[in-house]
Amino acid sequence: MPLVTTTRPATSLTIRPATDDDWPLLWPVVEAVVREGETYVYPLDLTSDQAREVWMERPPGATVVAESADGTVLGTAKMGPNRPGHGDHVGTASFMVAPAARGLGVGRALGERVVAWHRERGFHGIQFNAVVESNAPAVRLWRSLGFAIIGTVPGAFRSPAHGYVGLHVMYLDLT
Amino acid sequence: MPLVTTTRPATSLTIRPATDDDWPLLWPVVEAVVREGETYVYPLDLTSDQAREVWMERPPGATVVAESADGTVLGTAKMGPNRPGHGDHVGTASFMVAPAARGLGVGRALGERVVAWHRERGFHGIQFNAVVESNAPAVRLWRSLGFAIIGTVPGAFRSPAHGYVGLHVMYLDLT
Repeated sequence: MPLVTTTRPATSLTIRPATDDDWPLLWPVVEAVVREGETYVYPLDLTSDQAREVWMERPPGATVVAESADGTVLGTAKMGPNRPGHGDHVGTASFMVAPAARGLGVGRALGERVVAWHRERGFHGIQFNAVVESNAPAVRLWRSLGFAIIGTVPGAFRSPAHGYVGLHVMYLDLT
Repeated sequence: MPLVTTTRPATSLTIRPATDDDWPLLWPVVEAVVREGETYVYPLDLTSDQAREVWMERPPGATVVAESADGTVLGTAKMGPNRPGHGDHVGTASFMVAPAARGLGVGRALGERVVAWHRERGFHGIQFNAVVESNAPAVRLWRSLGFAIIGTVPGAFRSPAHGYVGLHVMYLDLT
């Protein structure tokens, strides 16, 4: 687990929509998180092409990139309806922060952007389907943004470091 | 909501693996359930080709068909890992019963088959991600098979008949 410091990014953190041209810079961040295998249930052998297909959302979804003043990618998030049809009024999102940028408030900045994005579009709420119980910094962050744990599926995630841990369903009501 | 009777199928109900050739007979059942829009969050304008892609599972998943002695399709279920990677030890499944065959125990027979399928393959549990709260027969059936409600995402489903209702996450422990 990365050290969590109280250092916050100064004015140098920018969050902007991701474009197809960004993928070569996003993939190393996504790859590091996927290969680590501690926070997401992606296939461990995910290729760049497969990851791009999953991560680069098309409308009505969106993908954003967090970067420093010199253009270094610090993190990325994707968001959009959690379900189609009669469930598309609830959104969802996924987040990845570059290992070297953890503990700097990148996740919080991305989370705030994601909440604002859903509010602006009239979503009724945001559901996270599978927050790894042992990912304490993430659980703490989402709680601080107002998300509640709806329930926990016991032992649904095999953490390389912690063994079988639960997956939280978390929800933020925006109505 | 269909009338629920106590009539159970006699020995005439057969459950077998579905093949590609079955799709023309499965699609009317899937289409009826999707268009009804009361029990699943599929796109309402789902086409036959899109539905086949979603419904006809490839290994390690499976799709089965329930049919009467004369070959009439009564229902269908699909099953497989709920998540890839470090989450693939928990399974999931979806069920559809032909409108004319409801209340006859087809759903229960399919549910029992699905539970057995997961047990045989060593899954640790079965998770249903989105059981519509107002679908009382389904909630009752899954409870009777041992599933527990892990949590409910409030108002996450727009039921044509009931308005905004919750989506249950249900789970059966097989360990």
